Amino acid sequence: MTAVLPRTGIGVDVHAFAPEDKPRPLWLGGLLWEGERGLAGHSDADAVAHAAANALFSAAGLGDLGTHFGTDRPEYASARGTVLLAEAARIVRDAGFGIGNVAVQLVCQRPRFGPRRAEAEAVLSEAAGAPVSVSAATTDHLGFTGRREGVAAIATALVYPLA
Amino acid sequence: MTAVLPRTGIGVDVHAFAPEDKPRPLWLGGLLWEGERGLAGHSDADAVAHAAANALFSAAGLGDLGTHFGTDRPEYASARGTVLLAEAARIVRDAGFGIGNVAVQLVCQRPRFGPRRAEAEAVLSEAAGAPVSVSAATTDHLGFTGRREGVAAIATALVYPLA
Amino acid sequence: MTAVLPRTGIGVDVHAFAPEDKPRPLWLGGLLWEGERGLAGHSDADAVAHAAANALFSAAGLGDLGTHFGTDRPEYASARGTVLLAEAARIVRDAGFGIGNVAVQLVCQRPRFGPRRAEAEAVLSEAAGAPVSVSAATTDHLGFTGRREGVAAIATALVYPLA
Repeated sequence: MTAVLPRTGIGVDVHAFAPEDKPRPLWLGGLLWEGERGLAGHSDADAVAHAAANALFSAAGLGDLGTHFGTDRPEYASARGTVLLAEAARIVRDAGFGIGNVAVQLVCQRPRFGPRRAEAEAVLSEAAGAPVSVSAATTDHLGFTGRREGVAAIATALVYPLA
Repeated sequence: MTAVLPRTGIGVDVHAFAPEDKPRPLWLGGLLWEGERGLAGHSDADAVAHAAANALFSAAGLGDLGTHFGTDRPEYASARGTVLLAEAARIVRDAGFGIGNVAVQLVCQRPRFGPRRAEAEAVLSEAAGAPVSVSAATTDHLGFTGRREGVAAIATALVYPLA
Repeated sequence: MTAVLPRTGIGVDVHAFAPEDKPRPLWLGGLLWEGERGLAGHSDADAVAHAAANALFSAAGLGDLGTHFGTDRPEYASARGTVLLAEAARIVRDAGFGIGNVAVQLVCQRPRFGPRRAEAEAVLSEAAGAPVSVSAATTDHLGFTGRREGVAAIATALVYPLA
C-alpha cells in the first residue's frame, strides 16, 4: 500500500527465430519449450523476460537493457532472461523504487502460450520479486510475427518511489 | 479514490480485413461502420474492444480473451466486442478488483476514427463500467496496418485491489 | 504525492524515413541528429515526442494529436515535437489533471539512441513539465522498423485528477 503516485513504464522486445540450419532451444517467459523452434540472439532471446526488464527500467527512468547489460557488463549479454529480469528488479530497487507489478503481452503465432501461462507467471514473478502477468495474442497471420519470422513482447510496469 | 497501489495491464489485438469475396460489416470501438470494409474473424473482430478486454485481464493477472472465452465458453467466441468487454469487466470485478480506466490506441489507415471517437468512448465506457478512452494513429502506410491488411489495437488498463 | 487513483494512457506514433531524393533533418526525442537520415512528414516527424503527447491525451481522455492539432489549429501541424508535447501537457493540465510521468519506447534500427538518451529525456521532460523517460529497442531487422523504412514509438503516461 502506498499513498505516493506510481510511475508507469513501457518496454518492447523482439527476437527473430533462429535459422533452420542453426537450431536453438526456445526460451520464452522464463520457460524452456521443448520441440519448439528457438529464437536467435546472443542471450537466450527470451523476449517476454526482456520486455519485462525494459518496462521496469522505463518506469524508473533508468534506460533499458542496453544501458545496463551492454558493453559495461558483457557477462550479462548471454544470461538467461530470468537472470536479467532479477538483476533489473534489483537495480530498480537499489535506485529507490518499489515494484508494483509488471504485465507482458506476448505477440506471436507460436508457441501456444496459454497452457503454460501460470507456470511462466510463477517463474517470472519470482525473478522480479513482484507480480508479473503474461498474456498472449496472435496477429491473424499479419506482419512479422504472423509470418513466424519472430516474436514480439510488449510490457508495462508500475513502480513507486520509496519514501 | 484509493490509497492502494493500482496494477497496470497491457493488451494487444489484431484482426485482418475480410477478403473481398467474403465481405463482412466493420465493427470497431463498439460501433458499426457503414460502408467500410469489415474485419475477418469468428467474433465481430472488434480489435478495440478486444484489446481493452485483454488489458483488463492483464492488469488483474487473469490471462486473456483465450483464457476466458475459448473452449470453455464457446458461446462467447462469436459475441459482440462490447459484450466481451462487459463480461471481462465483470470477471475482473468478481476477482476482487476495481477498474480505474482503460485507454486504447487504434492503429490503422482506415476507418478515420476521430469523427466517431466520443461515440465509441461512450459505448465502450458503458460496457466496461469505467472510463475507456480511444485514440487513433496511422503508420504512414508502413507495415500491415499501413498496407491496409488489418488493424491493430493496443490498450493499457489500471485496476486496483478492493479492500 | 496523491491519494487519488491515477489514469493510464497509451500512445503510438510512426513515421517513415524521407525518400533519398528529398532529404530532411532527423528530429527524434526533441533532438537534432546530424548526419542521420530524416523522417518524412509535415511536422518534424519526431515520433518520440508525438507518442508522448498521444499518451498524455489518451490518459486524460482527450483524444489524440489529430483532435487538437488537426484542421482547427493548422499552425501546429508543422511545429517542433517538443512544442506539441508542451502544448499537449498544457491542455491536459487545463482539463484538470496533474501529470505523473511519461515513458516512451522507441523502436528502430537507427539512430543508436542510447548515447543521447539522457539529453533527450532532459529536453522532453522540460517540455512536458514532468518526467519523461525514453528507452530504445531494435526488432532484430524484422518488420518495417527492422527494414529501416521508418521508426515507431510507443508511450504510456500516468495523469491524476486534481482535487
